[in-house]
Amino acid sequence: MCELLGMSANVPTDICFSFTGLVKRGGETGPHKDGWGITFYEGKGCRSFKDPHPSCESKIAELVKAYPIKSEAVISHIRQANRGGVSLENTHPFSREIWGRNWTYAHNGQLTGYKTLETGDAIPVGATDSEKAFCWILHQLRQKYRRKPANKLAVFKFIAQCCDQLRAKGVFNMLLTDGDYVMAYCSNNLHWITRRAPFGEARLIDEDVVIDFQKETTPNDVVTVIATRPLTDGEVWHKMQPGEFAVFKQGEKLL
Amino acid sequence: MCELLGMSANVPTDICFSFTGLVKRGGETGPHKDGWGITFYEGKGCRSFKDPHPSCESKIAELVKAYPIKSEAVISHIRQANRGGVSLENTHPFSREIWGRNWTYAHNGQLTGYKTLETGDAIPVGATDSEKAFCWILHQLRQKYRRKPANKLAVFKFIAQCCDQLRAKGVFNMLLTDGDYVMAYCSNNLHWITRRAPFGEARLIDEDVVIDFQKETTPNDVVTVIATRPLTDGEVWHKMQPGEFAVFKQGEKLL
Repeated sequence: MCELLGMSANVPTDICFSFTGLVKRGGETGPHKDGWGITFYEGKGCRSFKDPHPSCESKIAELVKAYPIKSEAVISHIRQANRGGVSLENTHPFSREIWGRNWTYAHNGQLTGYKTLETGDAIPVGATDSEKAFCWILHQLRQKYRRKPANKLAVFKFIAQCCDQLRAKGVFNMLLTDGDYVMAYCSNNLHWITRRAPFGEARLIDEDVVIDFQKETTPNDVVTVIATRPLTDGEVWHKMQPGEFAVFKQGEKLL
Repeated sequence: MCELLGMSANVPTDICFSFTGLVKRGGETGPHKDGWGITFYEGKGCRSFKDPHPSCESKIAELVKAYPIKSEAVISHIRQANRGGVSLENTHPFSREIWGRNWTYAHNGQLTGYKTLETGDAIPVGATDSEKAFCWILHQLRQKYRRKPANKLAVFKFIAQCCDQLRAKGVFNMLLTDGDYVMAYCSNNLHWITRRAPFGEARLIDEDVVIDFQKETTPNDVVTVIATRPLTDGEVWHKMQPGEFAVFKQGEKLL
């Protein structure tokens, strides 16, 4: 299994605090030593930092922790390999273009019977069930919608149906974003929290770090964090239900 | 105009020395202050570091200079914006999947009449002539070859013809790689050098750094560096001719 981390915010926000907790699970407080990655959106553009080495000892993870890249949408993943070896091409998140936007995806879980999934022109580069499932979702979307669809609600429902089909093949916890919307699908393990005024304090579970969000935010900030397991003590995280699909935009839960 | 840098090597090699020269041109010894990026291949996987800020003052560029990521194929670019604003989505290199491989591309020059180029399902995310031309090349390749072609020589010839068509629209200096082959097309400004035993010393033009390649290499290493302008003194760089297309693999010039 792996660990997922996502963020949606209404102002460019750094994710250093949550990422600090996550990377500890990459070989230190957790067994997820087979690489890690994080993708930040800045407008329509995005940039990823990836490493097939454990996050707890990665120089690039050090940079990401220390250098506050501010973003309104972030997806991160630390990996414990099951399908596909430890290599850069098997390291999440995966990003591909559809309808003129970069879509970014990360998966936690394991699928069986995934090799027969049709992916059309979206051919996997690596050998993971995860990337294959992502390519299949993109192919499904391209087949259903030749051009960028105007009815976003219909697209979300369709993506949720695709996720249901993948969950029937095993465990499928997923984060997916086009930079505007951050989508989360729960198979068995996904939690989220929305922070807004009045902000309080929180303590990381995985490292002895306390943050006073009041000092880091303005009263209008709305920031949602989604994670496999809660990252903090002293706050209430919402546990998602099996088969539940959630959509966040600018920190607010839309669906 | 922008500056291009590419590398092809027969052993995983770090590009710190050449990159150190290049980043100086990003706002210090050159006017290319509108962002930079670099993509490293490790097997089929690749990772990019990008920043829409000047490379000479970028913390991420500092990391790339200091952290020797070893790779057999690298493409880098520093930007002086002409078409498209300064933003992450307009920052080179651009990477997209075709035939199950990540292809990475960077362009130096300026095109006119590019907006009518047909790109099919490969839709640009940003607003540059460069990304539009890349999407057009990929669309041309997908239309000509439904599946990964076995005859690589024919593919190279076809890509060279595509580049000729783009050069007819303005200035088109390009680097393109699938991780195995590093392709270079010259419109007016591209140089390359192949270093092999016996290795000598070289001095960066843009910064007071001397390297003794003999200390950094083994006798079997073959490393080609391609750049807009020569990066070093005391070595002979080959100047490419207008319309010339070159292909390198594992450091050796194939075409």
